[in-house]
Amino acid sequence: MATQRFCIESADMKKSLGAKTLLYPAPVLVVGSYDKAGKANMMTVSWAGICCSQPPCIAVALRKETYSYANLMERKAFTVSIPSEDYVKEADFFGLVSGRSTDKLAATKLTAVRSKLVEAPYIKEFPLVLECKVVDIAEIGMHTQFVGEVLDAKAEESVLGQGGAIDIRKLRPLVFTPDTQEYYGIGGFIAKVFSAGKGI
Amino acid sequence: MATQRFCIESADMKKSLGAKTLLYPAPVLVVGSYDKAGKANMMTVSWAGICCSQPPCIAVALRKETYSYANLMERKAFTVSIPSEDYVKEADFFGLVSGRSTDKLAATKLTAVRSKLVEAPYIKEFPLVLECKVVDIAEIGMHTQFVGEVLDAKAEESVLGQGGAIDIRKLRPLVFTPDTQEYYGIGGFIAKVFSAGKGI
Repeated sequence: MATQRFCIESADMKKSLGAKTLLYPAPVLVVGSYDKAGKANMMTVSWAGICCSQPPCIAVALRKETYSYANLMERKAFTVSIPSEDYVKEADFFGLVSGRSTDKLAATKLTAVRSKLVEAPYIKEFPLVLECKVVDIAEIGMHTQFVGEVLDAKAEESVLGQGGAIDIRKLRPLVFTPDTQEYYGIGGFIAKVFSAGKGI
Repeated sequence: MATQRFCIESADMKKSLGAKTLLYPAPVLVVGSYDKAGKANMMTVSWAGICCSQPPCIAVALRKETYSYANLMERKAFTVSIPSEDYVKEADFFGLVSGRSTDKLAATKLTAVRSKLVEAPYIKEFPLVLECKVVDIAEIGMHTQFVGEVLDAKAEESVLGQGGAIDIRKLRPLVFTPDTQEYYGIGGFIAKVFSAGKGI
């Protein structure tokens, strides 16, 4: 019977990089919200991920200082609009300036769509959006994590492939790299899940 | 002065896909833990993301039924080992079978490294690892979210680029696609963060 191979840390040649959030790949998501006056705001977030299958939930982490933070607290709702590579400029801009001082939607000339499901706007021009109801709020150090239950996902027909499923090669979402602070695209198909490992 | 463009939902042509966790890109991470007997186990997780900059924290969501769940609960520690494209078979295998019935490390012939910082093993052959102490546990529907403070990140010299930073083109992490259940690679460089949007 095969046994586990193991070794002590000094036998591994990896280099310590310190206590850093070096998780790859990180997403590039645009969080949409309304302020008290009903003005739409957008903010780019990469500290985010899926956190539950049933009910379908995603988590986004924001700093208290952001304009969006108060909006999410007030409305208990947000959207996520996923930019394609074509909108890298706009996505970067949404992370560069604050909604407190700049009307980011007016500046980018993108269109805020009023959702029927939640009190939060999403971006018409972006190919995929998620409409979320805040179901949990947790303080984690300098960030606040909002867990949003996905009430609906909506996509442009142009990013759908076989069987009506999202084709990532058509969606062309952005990848954020935490260490070098860059945007990358998605590469080629590698394997099917729960198939590649069957040979082991 | 420019004003916001907005429209109602019926003026947007997106197609409803239902309440689904369609967040792109999702990562492919291998969570390492020890069971009560000290046996190392590895499990592939894509419901995960960065959730705080300071202290540096990441979140991973596991179902209670997994073998790893009890390990994380018991040891209050885990690692994340990020596979390169070269290890897609092993990463897939770690998500395909349970540590309850299979010694996944023995089967894949990968090496479990004993961490000096946390009571959890990481994979020697994978190019980037994070050693995490559990600082928060939250029940979110059918998943439990473990927030881990990253005590150290360690990388192979071969994935470091300019200034000793991680070069994602050398790291070659996997991307998971929630809708089609496939693995993809990372594509080309698109832009620098906080630079692309300056023209707006």
